[in-house]
Amino acid sequence: MTKRVTRRELLTMLAATGTSATVLNASAALGMIPDTRLGIPEIPRADPINRPSIVILGAGISGLTAAYELDKAGYDCVVLEAAPKAGGRCLTVRHGDLIDEVGNPQICDFDDEPHMYFNAGPARIPSSHRNLMHYCKALGVELEIFINENKECYYQDDAMFKGKPIKNRVFTTNARGFMAEIMAKNFNNDELERPFDRYEAEALISAMRAFGDLDADELYKGSFRAGYAKGGFIDHGEQTEVVALHELLKSRFMNSALTANEGETGPVLFQPVGGMDKIVQGFARELRNKIYYDVVVTSVQLQDNGVAIEYQHNGIKYLVEADYCFNCIPTHLMTGIDNNFPADYQEAMHHVRRGEAYKSAFQTKTRFWEKDDIYGGITWTNQPIRQIWYPPHGLFKEKGVILAAYDFGGGMHFTRLSQEERLETAIRQGEKVHSDYRQQVEKGITIAWHRMNHMLGCAARWSSSFGGMSAREERLYHTLQAPAGGRHYTIGDQVSLHTAWQESAILSAHWAIGDMVKRMGGTSSMPGRRV
Amino acid sequence: MTKRVTRRELLTMLAATGTSATVLNASAALGMIPDTRLGIPEIPRADPINRPSIVILGAGISGLTAAYELDKAGYDCVVLEAAPKAGGRCLTVRHGDLIDEVGNPQICDFDDEPHMYFNAGPARIPSSHRNLMHYCKALGVELEIFINENKECYYQDDAMFKGKPIKNRVFTTNARGFMAEIMAKNFNNDELERPFDRYEAEALISAMRAFGDLDADELYKGSFRAGYAKGGFIDHGEQTEVVALHELLKSRFMNSALTANEGETGPVLFQPVGGMDKIVQGFARELRNKIYYDVVVTSVQLQDNGVAIEYQHNGIKYLVEADYCFNCIPTHLMTGIDNNFPADYQEAMHHVRRGEAYKSAFQTKTRFWEKDDIYGGITWTNQPIRQIWYPPHGLFKEKGVILAAYDFGGGMHFTRLSQEERLETAIRQGEKVHSDYRQQVEKGITIAWHRMNHMLGCAARWSSSFGGMSAREERLYHTLQAPAGGRHYTIGDQVSLHTAWQESAILSAHWAIGDMVKRMGGTSSMPGRRV
Repeated sequence: MTKRVTRRELLTMLAATGTSATVLNASAALGMIPDTRLGIPEIPRADPINRPSIVILGAGISGLTAAYELDKAGYDCVVLEAAPKAGGRCLTVRHGDLIDEVGNPQICDFDDEPHMYFNAGPARIPSSHRNLMHYCKALGVELEIFINENKECYYQDDAMFKGKPIKNRVFTTNARGFMAEIMAKNFNNDELERPFDRYEAEALISAMRAFGDLDADELYKGSFRAGYAKGGFIDHGEQTEVVALHELLKSRFMNSALTANEGETGPVLFQPVGGMDKIVQGFARELRNKIYYDVVVTSVQLQDNGVAIEYQHNGIKYLVEADYCFNCIPTHLMTGIDNNFPADYQEAMHHVRRGEAYKSAFQTKTRFWEKDDIYGGITWTNQPIRQIWYPPHGLFKEKGVILAAYDFGGGMHFTRLSQEERLETAIRQGEKVHSDYRQQVEKGITIAWHRMNHMLGCAARWSSSFGGMSAREERLYHTLQAPAGGRHYTIGDQVSLHTAWQESAILSAHWAIGDMVKRMGGTSSMPGRRV
Repeated sequence: MTKRVTRRELLTMLAATGTSATVLNASAALGMIPDTRLGIPEIPRADPINRPSIVILGAGISGLTAAYELDKAGYDCVVLEAAPKAGGRCLTVRHGDLIDEVGNPQICDFDDEPHMYFNAGPARIPSSHRNLMHYCKALGVELEIFINENKECYYQDDAMFKGKPIKNRVFTTNARGFMAEIMAKNFNNDELERPFDRYEAEALISAMRAFGDLDADELYKGSFRAGYAKGGFIDHGEQTEVVALHELLKSRFMNSALTANEGETGPVLFQPVGGMDKIVQGFARELRNKIYYDVVVTSVQLQDNGVAIEYQHNGIKYLVEADYCFNCIPTHLMTGIDNNFPADYQEAMHHVRRGEAYKSAFQTKTRFWEKDDIYGGITWTNQPIRQIWYPPHGLFKEKGVILAAYDFGGGMHFTRLSQEERLETAIRQGEKVHSDYRQQVEKGITIAWHRMNHMLGCAARWSSSFGGMSAREERLYHTLQAPAGGRHYTIGDQVSLHTAWQESAILSAHWAIGDMVKRMGGTSSMPGRRV
C-alpha cells in the first residue's frame, strides 16, 4: 500500500525544489549540449613557399596536438623535447622502460607482453572528451572499454568492520537502503490534510523505494542487490546479511558509495589497447622527423616578429628563430629558463602551483582478483595507497599489472620512503584487502610525479578546481593564456580550468592556434606577398 | 556549515534502521559470498569399455553443457537437435542467417562483416556468472566489455517534456538532486535538543549532499554532473539548466534513473567478441561429431534401466536407447511429444508458462549515436519499442547494428503486426529519440521469440520471479528437477529459479549431472563388472 502525502507537504516540497534554481520546463530545450566541444580550429592554408615557422617546446599532448594541426596546415614545425621520448605525463611503462625519477631511477622488469603495461599518467578517456576521441580515430588508436567502478571491488576502511574489506555491492546496497528508509520515513511523517496529487506523491515514494529496494512498509530489510549469500539459481537465494548503518557511518566512503560514476567518470570510459602512449606514438608517427629529443632549452626571447630559442643538444648550443612559439614546458620549470617575458606574464607563470601525485604498480603472478569476480575497477581503502586498480584487459591471460597505490592528493607519504619501503608499504596495505597479496605481486615500480625528471610536478592547480578563482587569479589565467609579445603561447592542461586531463591539453592547443590564426588575419594567403 | 541533528532524531533513526532486520556488526564476516557458485560437478571416470550412454535432447546451452562435461568424463553422448544449428535461444543473427519465425521467416541482409551481428537472445554476460565465465575461458571464447547503462543515452517519455528526449545524465542528476534535497530538508527540520554524535550526523548529511550534489544550504541548484552547457575546459563551465521535479515526476523513469546498475546488470558485463553464439560454437567444436541436427523427437519412453527415444530425420524413423536422457526441449513442447512420464512429472511440465519477448534490430548507415557521445548503452522510452541499444563494439567503424526494440514484458504489441508494420513502427518510435533515425537505419529484422520455430516461447516463468512460489509450485518445481524414473532429467533455465540467463541453464545441467553421479554411486568404476 502506498502511503499518502498531504497537499501541504507536497506543495511545500515542490515549491522548494522548484524554486531553488531556475528550472527548465516542458517548453525549453534540454539535454542538448551544444556541439561546440569538438574545437579543432580551421587553419587557413599556409603559403607553401613562405611558410610560417613554429617552434614547439615540449612533446606533451598539447605540443603534439599543435604540431600535428599546424604541420597538416602547411606550417614549418619543429618540436624540441627534453626527454628521450615524447608524451610528457602521458607515460606508459613496459618491460625495459626507464622511470626517470630524480634520485630513484628504475628499470621496469615486467614480462615483455603486450598486455603487461602500466599507464603511469592518464589512464582513462571519458567518451565525452570529443577532441581526444577524435584524435584516437584520426591516428588509428584502437580503443577498448575501461572499467572504473565495479561493484565486485572492495571498500576497506580501518575504522569500519575492524578493517575488514567489504564488497562495494554490499556497502552500496546497504548505504542506499538506509538512506532511502530515512528519506521515505521523513517524507511520510506528518499526514495533516487530505491527500493531493496522488500520482506525484506515489511517484516519489516509488522512486525512494526503488532507490533503496525498500519493502512495502518503506523499511530496508536487505536486498539481493548486495548479492546472494547462497543459492539464487537452482535453489532459492538467500540474502546477504544487512549491514548496520552505524557501522557504515564509521567510514568516509558513504559519500563515494553514493556518488559512483559521477563527474568525469560518469560517461563510458576508454583506454587505448596496449597503453595510453599509443596516442603519443600516433602523433609521433604523423610528425615523422619533426620531433627532436634530448634537447635542453636554455633561453626563450621574444623578438619584434617572432621568438628566438636557444637550446643545447649533446653539449652543443643552437639558436632557432621562428614566427611563433608554442610552449608546453611546465611553467614552474619555464620560470627557471632565461626569458624576456613581460612582468605580468612572468607573474602568471610563477603563480601556477603543481600537484603532487604518486602511483605504483606490480606485476602479478596470477590474475587473483578474477577468482573473486573482479574484472577491472577500483578498490578503495583509507590507507595511504588509497586505491587498487585491476586491469580491464588481458582477461583469461595468466598475469596482469595492477595499480597498487594512487595518492593524488599529496603523494608525500610514499615519496619520503626508499624504493624498498615504498613497495613493502604497498604490499602491507594491499594485504588488508587481499590476504594473499604478498604472494601474488612482484616487480613493483613507483612513480612520484613531482620528482620525475623534466616534470617535477603533476597537474597544475588553479583554484578553479577548488571552489572559484579570485579576480587576481582570473587575470593571471588570462594573461598566461594570451600570447606573450603576441608570439609565445603557453599551452598544456596547465592553461585550462580543468587540469589533469588530456582533453584540456588538446583544447589549450586548439585555443592557441585559433588565437594565432585570428591575429594572422584568418584567411589563406596567396603565395608570396602583396606588392 | 553543517546543520545539526538532535539526539532524539539520531537515536530514532539509528534504532529504526538498526532493527529493521538482522544486522551485521563489526564482528561478523561480510561481503564474502561463499565460493559455491562455480558448480561444475566432479564426474567419476567412466569405464572405457562399458561407457554409460547419454542421449541429450536439444543443443541449447544446458544440453551443450551436459554433453561437454559428460563427454569429457568418458560417457557416450549424443545430442539430438531439432533445428539446423545449435544454441537454442543463444542465437546470433548475421548476414545470410534465417530467422525462423513461424509465419514470418526472414533472411538477414546485414553487411557481411564480423562486427555486424545481432544477439537475438542473450546479449550480456554478468561477470559474476562464474560458470559461464569458466566455459568462455575453457572454450577459448574471447570476451569484451559490454556497456549497459550509459549516462549519455536518453530517456524519452511522451508524458515528460512533451515527449522530447532527455539525456540520462540530465535526468539522473536532477532526480538525485531533488531527492537529496527532500531527504536533507526533512532530516533537519526538527531541531529539538542539543546535537549528539556529531560525527555520525555529519556523515549522513555529507552523504546526502554528495548523493545530490547539494550546496552548503542543502539545496539542489543544478550540478555539473548533468554536463556542461558550455565551457568547462578553457573557459569557466556553465551549468545545464535545472529540470523541474514536477516535470521529472511525469515520467515513470524516476525509478530506473535511481536504480541503474543494480541486480544482474550491477557487475561488469561482457559479451563474446563477434557474437554470443561463439559460446555455442565453442561447445560444438569440442563435441565434434556428436551433435545431430534436423532431428524430430517423436517419443520419449522411460524404461527399467534407461530411456528409449524415437526420432525422425529426413523422413526416416530411428530408435535410440540410452542409460540416461538429459532433455532441454521446452516443457510446453515436450508435453506434446509422446511419453510415459509419471502423472506428477507431466503436471509439472504442463505447469511451466513461457514468456513472450520481442526484439528487432537495424543495420545503420553511420554510427550516428557516436556523434552524440553515445558509445554503447541503452536509451529508454515509454513507447512499445521500450529500448534502443547501441553497440559497445565496432568503435570507429563505418556502420553498426542497433537493437531497435526490446519488449520483454509481453511482446504482443509488435507480434500482431506485419513485418513491414513492425519495422515502420520501430522507425517512427525511434525518431522521437533520434530525429534522423529514418535516414540512418536499414535492413531491419524482427524476432518474436514466442513464435520462433522449435521454441514457441521465451524464458520459462516460475512465480519465483514474481514474489514467491506457492507450496504447490514448489512441489512441481522439485518434481520437474528430479529425474523421471530416475533416468530422465529435464534441464535448461526452465528448471531454475532465475530463468532467462545462460548461467541458470548451465547450473541446471550441473545439478542434473551431480544428481546422476550420486545415484550411480559416485565413484569411478573399474573396467568391466564385479564377478
